[in-house]
Amino acid sequence: MNMVELIEKKKLNQPLTKEEIQYFVSGAADGSIPDYQLSALLMAIRLNGMNREETVNLTLAMAHSGDMMDLSSLPGIPTDKHSTGGVGDTTTLVLAPLVAACGVPVAKMSGRGLGHTGGTLDKLESISGLSVDLTEEQFLQQVSDIGLAVVGQTKNLAPADKTLYALRDVTSTVDSLPLIASSIVSKKLASGAQAIVLDVKTGAGALMQTVEDSIQLAKTMVRIGCDAGRRMVALVTDMGEPLGSHIGNALEVKEAIDVLSGRVEGPLLTVALELGARMLVLGGKADDVESGKAKLMDALRSGAGLEKLRQMIRAQGGDPSCCDDVSKLPQAKVIVPLASREGGYIASMDTIRLGNAAQGMGAGRKQKTDVIDFSVGFVMHHRIGDYVAPGDVIATLHAKDAESAAVAGEEILQSLHFSPTPVPPCKLIHAFIDSGD
Amino acid sequence: MNMVELIEKKKLNQPLTKEEIQYFVSGAADGSIPDYQLSALLMAIRLNGMNREETVNLTLAMAHSGDMMDLSSLPGIPTDKHSTGGVGDTTTLVLAPLVAACGVPVAKMSGRGLGHTGGTLDKLESISGLSVDLTEEQFLQQVSDIGLAVVGQTKNLAPADKTLYALRDVTSTVDSLPLIASSIVSKKLASGAQAIVLDVKTGAGALMQTVEDSIQLAKTMVRIGCDAGRRMVALVTDMGEPLGSHIGNALEVKEAIDVLSGRVEGPLLTVALELGARMLVLGGKADDVESGKAKLMDALRSGAGLEKLRQMIRAQGGDPSCCDDVSKLPQAKVIVPLASREGGYIASMDTIRLGNAAQGMGAGRKQKTDVIDFSVGFVMHHRIGDYVAPGDVIATLHAKDAESAAVAGEEILQSLHFSPTPVPPCKLIHAFIDSGD
Repeated sequence: MNMVELIEKKKLNQPLTKEEIQYFVSGAADGSIPDYQLSALLMAIRLNGMNREETVNLTLAMAHSGDMMDLSSLPGIPTDKHSTGGVGDTTTLVLAPLVAACGVPVAKMSGRGLGHTGGTLDKLESISGLSVDLTEEQFLQQVSDIGLAVVGQTKNLAPADKTLYALRDVTSTVDSLPLIASSIVSKKLASGAQAIVLDVKTGAGALMQTVEDSIQLAKTMVRIGCDAGRRMVALVTDMGEPLGSHIGNALEVKEAIDVLSGRVEGPLLTVALELGARMLVLGGKADDVESGKAKLMDALRSGAGLEKLRQMIRAQGGDPSCCDDVSKLPQAKVIVPLASREGGYIASMDTIRLGNAAQGMGAGRKQKTDVIDFSVGFVMHHRIGDYVAPGDVIATLHAKDAESAAVAGEEILQSLHFSPTPVPPCKLIHAFIDSGD
Repeated sequence: MNMVELIEKKKLNQPLTKEEIQYFVSGAADGSIPDYQLSALLMAIRLNGMNREETVNLTLAMAHSGDMMDLSSLPGIPTDKHSTGGVGDTTTLVLAPLVAACGVPVAKMSGRGLGHTGGTLDKLESISGLSVDLTEEQFLQQVSDIGLAVVGQTKNLAPADKTLYALRDVTSTVDSLPLIASSIVSKKLASGAQAIVLDVKTGAGALMQTVEDSIQLAKTMVRIGCDAGRRMVALVTDMGEPLGSHIGNALEVKEAIDVLSGRVEGPLLTVALELGARMLVLGGKADDVESGKAKLMDALRSGAGLEKLRQMIRAQGGDPSCCDDVSKLPQAKVIVPLASREGGYIASMDTIRLGNAAQGMGAGRKQKTDVIDFSVGFVMHHRIGDYVAPGDVIATLHAKDAESAAVAGEEILQSLHFSPTPVPPCKLIHAFIDSGD
């Protein structure tokens, strides 16, 4: 097989065969195909697209380009959730303990990557002593013992995706539906879960900014997953504003504990229940979404969910006392209120700018080598639709010093847009996609 | 400026500014932009195109990416001719001496490259002792003295084109009108000629296989040249079959000498006169094409053209006696006739396959390091439209051994397609393009 002929085909908008796709994916994984040929192909894919069969073959080839996790030794149906990423999106820390408490094993491997705030791994590391670096044996043993583990990658999962993603990032080929879908789903397939619930975020702070595009991405991913023999469904959920009120690593752990303790309700819990109930259905522990939500609420009210989080923290070497006293989580040096200059109904938020404000405070990485400050971030006291008077406290800043608090505060104020007339709150769930769609 | 943003613009089909084009072209020339970003941009250009202004700016940026030859010290209007390449295309060796004999200086720099047979430089090197490696001073002095020099590049001309062409070759982005046009014209601009006649080949053996595409390429190049302030016109000429009857390096020199001696007429002379007459017009030595052709024929009949070739060969250290005795050119060991198996009117030829047959014999390079055998090739005794009976000699093979003769013979036979009913001969000149088109 010849890479030039393969690029030629895609350039002429002809579908690539399974063998051709396997050829370039394994060449991306082992470095035998030079970057300049891969990037030309990526641009041809970006501009000419891929059909369903090609996208499935690409995903499978990427999944099989490295190790495939084998979770078959675990009891039950190992179930995972994946979010396309947003601001204040702490659903994993809420739903994973609740789902595990209901008897569906959650064996979750996460990457780190870059982002406005850290990923789930970073959030967990803000808990004193907790490690996400388990061996595969420890990981499987922990899921077998307590039904829950959230760890970093123990194996070489989907190395072709690493190569291709790094190239896409520097060649303006990120925004391609088949490339996005195959990148996400290949890693999920490789990490071994048999049932996967996808949370496709939509809106100003998301990868896909329109509901239409988000539904298209969700459908594409669900089709791939089902064609690959996994149980997979997707929700399209809102990212027109941060999901939770807390943005920052320890702050988001605090919010998850607040929710699991029953002290706090709201959009974060609502979305976590919608996602978690589907995990219970796919994992065979609930007949339908409504009974799934009821079981999850039972686990929340009984304290079983919070207890499951304590068990996981303890199993991974952390101090679970933060579950009972959130002040044991890292605390920022400077905690100051932020007053609104304007008044009116909050009409919209520049969610990415809010994320960047948190990143600027030290809550996220701009470069892979950046060290995260777990303690910093902010808490938003209002959502879209709320009425705010000038001078009202709109957020609380948790900063390392007064200067970074001031910079972030200005960014937050600039991110909010007000209306003199009432504005409805955001719809949280935009669509549900299953294999029938 | 940022290369990712630049790729993004072209991906979204937005025109690039002059400054953006200069940025990536100088980055290609100095190696500061990585190949994988250049190749993604090239694919976006291939798929989304470039408008006239972008193409002109790309050409000028590539021309200025290295040295610009200064021919202003030469008397008259230095004039050049460029062919997009074909099989049995020896027009330069016929027209350059005739044009120079008519008083228009021809200062021609050629590249070598790969091809079915060697380029003009390789053909000239089949003449004993002749060197194409002159210093710039020697080159200018020779044109000043005798009005004619055909040499290899003495300077670093259009280095950005070298980088981009090498990448296009391995990323399936050769077939892009703005990239082809800018590649050709940038080198012509850099090599200093003030007047340029382009010979755009069309048909089975050419870069562009339809007359329509060839006219489009010709128009694009002429527009660029004129926008860049040069006198430029183009002819679209036929490459549905080899132009001359001789294919191979020494064989093509022989054919050029045969034509300049007045022993042979035919399509090679016809096309050389059409191109050469336009060079005389642009060079200010003929009022119109017809009077230009008449002057060239006078130079041919008087022997002034052949004498100019002798002068050039002598000036470049070669033995001019081949002009009077073509048997002094390299002779192949095995010279055998090739009989047709089929009979009928020749309806078409697979011209590229004929070129490959010559390359297989050793007449051209597959890789840059291959050494050319000047003596080998073949002579076609028939053209499209000719009637051939089974057993008639259709070609004469000039080979290094019987085996390579047999292989080439089979290729040639397979390249010919016959019709039982009469077929008209090929039209030689399909279109003329000048700045008004």
